[in-house]
Amino acid sequence: MKLKIAVLAGDGIGPEITQQSIKVLKAIADRFDHDFEFEDAIVGAAAIDLLENPLPEATLDLCKKSNAVLFGAIGHPKYDNDPDAKVRPEQGLLRLRKELGLFANIRPVTTYAKLIDQSPLRPERIEGADLTIFRELTGGIYFGEKSQSEDGQSATDICTYSVMEIERMAHLAFKAAQQRRKKLTLVDKANVLETSRLWRKTVKKIAEEYKDVALDFLFVDNAAMQMILNPKQFDVILTENMFGDIISDEASVIGGSIGLLASASVGGDNAMFEPIHGSYPQATGKGIANPVASILSAAMLLDHFGLTEEGDVIRKAVAVSINLNVCTEDINKDNPYSTEKVGDFLEGLI
Amino acid sequence: MKLKIAVLAGDGIGPEITQQSIKVLKAIADRFDHDFEFEDAIVGAAAIDLLENPLPEATLDLCKKSNAVLFGAIGHPKYDNDPDAKVRPEQGLLRLRKELGLFANIRPVTTYAKLIDQSPLRPERIEGADLTIFRELTGGIYFGEKSQSEDGQSATDICTYSVMEIERMAHLAFKAAQQRRKKLTLVDKANVLETSRLWRKTVKKIAEEYKDVALDFLFVDNAAMQMILNPKQFDVILTENMFGDIISDEASVIGGSIGLLASASVGGDNAMFEPIHGSYPQATGKGIANPVASILSAAMLLDHFGLTEEGDVIRKAVAVSINLNVCTEDINKDNPYSTEKVGDFLEGLI
Ligand SMILES: CC(C)[C@H](C(=O)O)[C@@H](O)C(=O)O
Ligand SMILES: CC(C)[C@H](C(=O)O)[C@@H](O)C(=O)O
Repeated sequence: MKLKIAVLAGDGIGPEITQQSIKVLKAIADRFDHDFEFEDAIVGAAAIDLLENPLPEATLDLCKKSNAVLFGAIGHPKYDNDPDAKVRPEQGLLRLRKELGLFANIRPVTTYAKLIDQSPLRPERIEGADLTIFRELTGGIYFGEKSQSEDGQSATDICTYSVMEIERMAHLAFKAAQQRRKKLTLVDKANVLETSRLWRKTVKKIAEEYKDVALDFLFVDNAAMQMILNPKQFDVILTENMFGDIISDEASVIGGSIGLLASASVGGDNAMFEPIHGSYPQATGKGIANPVASILSAAMLLDHFGLTEEGDVIRKAVAVSINLNVCTEDINKDNPYSTEKVGDFLEGLI
Repeated sequence: MKLKIAVLAGDGIGPEITQQSIKVLKAIADRFDHDFEFEDAIVGAAAIDLLENPLPEATLDLCKKSNAVLFGAIGHPKYDNDPDAKVRPEQGLLRLRKELGLFANIRPVTTYAKLIDQSPLRPERIEGADLTIFRELTGGIYFGEKSQSEDGQSATDICTYSVMEIERMAHLAFKAAQQRRKKLTLVDKANVLETSRLWRKTVKKIAEEYKDVALDFLFVDNAAMQMILNPKQFDVILTENMFGDIISDEASVIGGSIGLLASASVGGDNAMFEPIHGSYPQATGKGIANPVASILSAAMLLDHFGLTEEGDVIRKAVAVSINLNVCTEDINKDNPYSTEKVGDFLEGLI
């Protein structure tokens, strides 16, 4: 298969981890005789520094004419701590999601037997936990109008959802549930929010088309608790943008390291694959960042194009590396491998 | 001291747990020679059933002319699963908070040595964790305008914050931090939300008046992760309404049972004290609900009126009951005490 992949490595540890994924993807292309073409473009703080634009037009164009985007990470402390900053790195990512129509963000959470003791949760709570979060990605309060009053004395964010936005997400999530354990949990705050009530109503209606899937509902506060008390109860979680952001980062503790969690953003003609972790500025350039989340995102990229055998090869290689403790310091504290060495090892297994 | 206390026991397990708190408060009044007068009023689903109003005027009036409100719980499944319901129990609670001007909700989270093994988290992560969440309670997306488009095809919630709303919360939280370990963490989503940026800016400015308190910032997604990875890092957490709802329910897992967590809502001429848990409809009338969260809320009520010695007597009694495993089934699985028996035991210790 021929694939054109735009590489947006971004800020912080983005470049060093993404490099490992490219190595691994190239090894896959060699072994399975595919033709993967990679092209780099700038985004985020790096792009602001150069062009005062977190998503330059050239970058967006490249993404649009590629089959997929491999994304690193975005964000820089100098913007986080300046509430008056006019442009921020995150705007680049948000605009990219919107422009590419990537309305569904899929975040699988699993556990590795070998890492059970890394988790802050007790083994019996998490052993065998296996869930996937379907987070709506281009709507809600992230994309509603934002404003400040003229006197600067108040600020407003607007959260809007349409039936259409909810329906298309719900179909994807129900279909995924059908391929899994046939359970779908909608997370919302329908006892307070009008948008949540629209989610609940719409999802209930769509559920009639998927009678083999058991649907239940959780308020987001309760879900944040249940995610820790009993993560095994979840199969597919469906939720809106902001709740998905919070719940999926929380769920990352289950597996023992946020450095392991991949995501796929789909929905448009294009698709984007990125770790769920951030740009981890303190680690930049030190060779200590875990490349696995990025490498597993590359595996999701392959799955997306039907190359599931290839995706499985990567996932198996990752499982081997974890079993042998060929891991960065977030996991292997005594004798950590560098970012690059982990990448080399995985490349070697393919 | 003479105190008039309005008792709004509410729905589900509300009445049975609140009854235990009243018993305990009466024992305190006897022992310390106070004059506590209790008066009941209806609220929530119970009030809807009777008067089609989740907060009848008589109830609100009673609260206004009382010194404090002891609140049970609110909510009923028949409303949760009906997105078209015109009135809902929660509206009663929300309106009460607003009408009484209770803009600050204070939720302390601690651990009991004896319960360390009840927590889903590993002992070494939580031993000694001791944090307090200051959740803004009368602003944000909870109270912004809610609407549906005419064709029913979209819904909107508006989130607004003013500098004044943020400032008064910040002062309370900084003052609490001064009495504790002098650390304050603002939880927001300033990389996306305009309201969060106003929070960050305003809190930074107020911080100049509290130079002895160390201020830091966490994005809410990261906070949801850090709460589980390392809850001991937190002292006082300050946050807006919706984030506070999610983060505080999540934090409840630390102590091993949500049935232990109390809260105080303050800010106006009046104050309200309630467990952070919900109405737990499945347990209603079975005598299995843990009354401790309600009883510790009663202790916070006493603190609020300067009766900290009395509050400490209750807290010590609770510690004794936990040490002796005189606990309901959420904690004592082998030989559970009933709701009433736990109340009796605590009353006896006063
Ligand atoms: C960087 C930030 C804007 C982003 C988000 O909130 O969506 C990140 O936290 C994520 O989850 O991908
Ligand atoms: C019942 C509900 C409206 C309420 C809230 O979200 O504030 C509850 O979850 C709480 O935290 O007190």
